[in-house]
Amino acid sequence: MAMNLPSTHPLLHAGTASAPLIQAYRGKRPTRQPVWFMRQAGRSLPEYRSLRATSTMLDACLTPNLAAEITMQPVRRHKVDAAIFFSDIVLPLKVAGIDVDIQPGVGPVMGRAIRTADDVAALPELEPEALAPIAEAIGICVAELGATPLIGFAGAPFTVASYLVEGRPSRDHLVTRALMHGDPQTFAKLLAWVARTTTTFLNVQIEAGASAVQLFDSWAGMLNPDDYRRHVMEHSASVFAAVAHYGVPRVHFGTKTSEILVDLLACGADVIGVDDRISLATAIERLGADVVVQGNLDPARLFTDWETLASHIDEVRDAGKRAKAHVMNLGHGVPPDTDPEVLTRVVAHIHGESV
Amino acid sequence: MAMNLPSTHPLLHAGTASAPLIQAYRGKRPTRQPVWFMRQAGRSLPEYRSLRATSTMLDACLTPNLAAEITMQPVRRHKVDAAIFFSDIVLPLKVAGIDVDIQPGVGPVMGRAIRTADDVAALPELEPEALAPIAEAIGICVAELGATPLIGFAGAPFTVASYLVEGRPSRDHLVTRALMHGDPQTFAKLLAWVARTTTTFLNVQIEAGASAVQLFDSWAGMLNPDDYRRHVMEHSASVFAAVAHYGVPRVHFGTKTSEILVDLLACGADVIGVDDRISLATAIERLGADVVVQGNLDPARLFTDWETLASHIDEVRDAGKRAKAHVMNLGHGVPPDTDPEVLTRVVAHIHGESV
Repeated sequence: MAMNLPSTHPLLHAGTASAPLIQAYRGKRPTRQPVWFMRQAGRSLPEYRSLRATSTMLDACLTPNLAAEITMQPVRRHKVDAAIFFSDIVLPLKVAGIDVDIQPGVGPVMGRAIRTADDVAALPELEPEALAPIAEAIGICVAELGATPLIGFAGAPFTVASYLVEGRPSRDHLVTRALMHGDPQTFAKLLAWVARTTTTFLNVQIEAGASAVQLFDSWAGMLNPDDYRRHVMEHSASVFAAVAHYGVPRVHFGTKTSEILVDLLACGADVIGVDDRISLATAIERLGADVVVQGNLDPARLFTDWETLASHIDEVRDAGKRAKAHVMNLGHGVPPDTDPEVLTRVVAHIHGESV
Repeated sequence: MAMNLPSTHPLLHAGTASAPLIQAYRGKRPTRQPVWFMRQAGRSLPEYRSLRATSTMLDACLTPNLAAEITMQPVRRHKVDAAIFFSDIVLPLKVAGIDVDIQPGVGPVMGRAIRTADDVAALPELEPEALAPIAEAIGICVAELGATPLIGFAGAPFTVASYLVEGRPSRDHLVTRALMHGDPQTFAKLLAWVARTTTTFLNVQIEAGASAVQLFDSWAGMLNPDDYRRHVMEHSASVFAAVAHYGVPRVHFGTKTSEILVDLLACGADVIGVDDRISLATAIERLGADVVVQGNLDPARLFTDWETLASHIDEVRDAGKRAKAHVMNLGHGVPPDTDPEVLTRVVAHIHGESV
């Protein structure tokens, strides 16, 4: 398959510059509060479930028309202010040649766990050309999206490394943390490798037209903050630094990160995603009022009556006014059982439309 | 089976009053730092695995000789400063007549989830007499333990309620949290029921000879602190208040509770268990130097070389000196894969014996 990456050009993301999402990410207060949902593309949508019936998760991510269609579904349905590219944080590992599969109901499972200095030394470098299907899918999305921005994303070094080390999803990440303490040199080399791979994944998405990027550190909140600062932070910071020259807004997010919000920001992020395990008011207090925040809606409220949900949205919106700007989002991914009509109503409510 | 609960008597727990654990729990500095491990009785011990081969978890808990033997195994092997009674936080539900089973590799699974006002109204009251096998098992332990204290325990109202509502282990507790927000009256009645059941479970353990009790709120750390304070705290506080008259030290613990340590203390606890996701120094800063703390060893360090582990133990011990007293423990339960010889060596190291 021929590879034809769009060149970096100052006008590449100009078409979305006045979109409410990009305005808010840049610290301005757009007339309409922007909203999108983590995992908006995926399991909560019947149109997604019928599309995905015949392909594995990673095959779907690598089929440009399919990945693009899945990315677009929630934008068409919910009228959210951004598309988030449909992919997976382990996709770059797969493309780099690592034996990884996403098992339904389990998560990412490695053919072989990466635990020694030799394992790390043997990891293949990810070539941007191998991500051609990703660039192609994003090109399709961007053409359809017009002035609506597409958000690219990647997994942060610690989170991706923990899948490599554990070999499968883990609740306690004991093997990863034992490697971190018992062999910090190998651990650092592994995170540096993931940081390079993640950077390549983000580069390709930005050059293909992503107007913003989000780094997901799903498991950073499992760490003692001292360990995060000592062993992890520099690697996430290197990813943010490596994509800084594109000038696209960079979001940093992880769940259960209330203790390290300031550190997530210090990695070089422009926007901090706040989960629902802390109040947005407290998060802004810790981060400072000069910061742009995203998120904080409680996914559990999606399963209550509308009045309970609407008053929660209003509370979060009011709290967000203390920040420089606030992009509405959930504090976690859309739960698979969510009624999509509720999400559509949430978007309309945030956009101030009668519902 | 005839029930013969020991009566409450001022001398009931006198035999353990000078034990290092009880001294430390009471804010004194014993000559030897006490240590025990959450989940010390159980899967990490080969002698446990061979005993349990032929019985289900809850049957084992309800067979006095078996529960007592399992409780004693780690005391004999590791020379820890306390036995923790071998049981399960859903045991009182089972004894009350609720259809619950602990499925290996899964956890507690309910025959039917409890989600409505009618479900809650129909919950059976737990009669202390039904806990006779528990009292008998504790009696056997206490007789063998002599001056070494036995710690009783129970699940806190929120954690036990979340199992009842979800019907099975859950990562996000979305149904529980939706009930909390969408129908706070029913949620409060459910937690009040669990608080009564938990109190009965603790009463029986104390009257049978437990010299201290620990309330486990495994899932409290999943909650936004505001929600914890508004919907949960009073029910845990009612349990602490209900057992206060026994005068035995009361420990309060949950993982990922760094944001609510002060609230856990304010529930009426005498000792706060600190997990490993926060440094002990920070925990003591938040709690105040007048508090007794327990725990904080990182279970992941059990899988590193001895020098890495020993220096971690020494660091935690040094940090603990800033508190009124510090009982050494892990910040989480013993991982099933732990080499028991490592635990024995940890105890000897803490006790200052050459190893």
